Amino acid sequence: MRLTTLSDYALRVLMYSAASGDKLITIEETARTYGISRAHLMKVVNILVRRGFLKGVRGRSGGFMLAKLPEAIRVGDVVRATEADFALVECFATGSQCIVTGCCKLPSMLNEALNAFIVTLDKYTIADLMLKPSDFSAPTRARSSRTRGPTIKIDARA
Amino acid sequence: MRLTTLSDYALRVLMYSAASGDKLITIEETARTYGISRAHLMKVVNILVRRGFLKGVRGRSGGFMLAKLPEAIRVGDVVRATEADFALVECFATGSQCIVTGCCKLPSMLNEALNAFIVTLDKYTIADLMLKPSDFSAPTRARSSRTRGPTIKIDARA
Repeated sequence: MRLTTLSDYALRVLMYSAASGDKLITIEETARTYGISRAHLMKVVNILVRRGFLKGVRGRSGGFMLAKLPEAIRVGDVVRATEADFALVECFATGSQCIVTGCCKLPSMLNEALNAFIVTLDKYTIADLMLKPSDFSAPTRARSSRTRGPTIKIDARA
Repeated sequence: MRLTTLSDYALRVLMYSAASGDKLITIEETARTYGISRAHLMKVVNILVRRGFLKGVRGRSGGFMLAKLPEAIRVGDVVRATEADFALVECFATGSQCIVTGCCKLPSMLNEALNAFIVTLDKYTIADLMLKPSDFSAPTRARSSRTRGPTIKIDARA
């Protein structure tokens, strides 16, 4: 199960914007900081501006910043805005070819689980993800092959 | 956000097996019923046999059936078995290059949401998804371009 790159990058942009406070930041600077694609970021920033999470300032010394306080931006709302497609399984999308579409009970069950996922994210705001500006200029060891994998635990209440 | 095709097909195989009761079914039959790839199904059935959800019988008149009662197979456990990779965002995977890996608070928040998703699915078993054998031989209109899309509602508790 994966979120789209759009959601991943959107949360990173908002975290970097939050750490930057009132300072305008640019797509170039954000792309360089995270070492990610400028083209992808442009799309992400456009969505975040359109949805009212970021405020853009045009011009040579332009850039963007948070459009509201970090505590006013719920993580669930960001994911709702960027995950245009919550098609967990084929039949959620248009044009399902599955023979049991119409009598299958899986969609409502998956919808309930999806709601539980999103509602959990609604408990948090960008303020809960706040980092210090210095966290974004970490020494190179932070870019090593460390992984967060082992921290992942899926409850197995057998 | 999407589940893998593996999870989608695994749930379909278990639902078809459950509807077939004690009757052995085959990969060919299941592939034909759902109109999906035989190769993909082979992989899915292998995993489901290995994980003890299906019981395979070799030989010319062989096939597979549920290895336990439908009410003993939790949907959450099936998804755990088939979603090898719950890498919701880049840093969940090995070799994360994100500069804030190490101080970022996003992974624990996403893990909590992921657990809420899986724990919801744990409330249900294959018995809750049971269909009648006749549901799998529906007339062709069931294969039309109907969609379950509009039934999806992500709570927006603003």
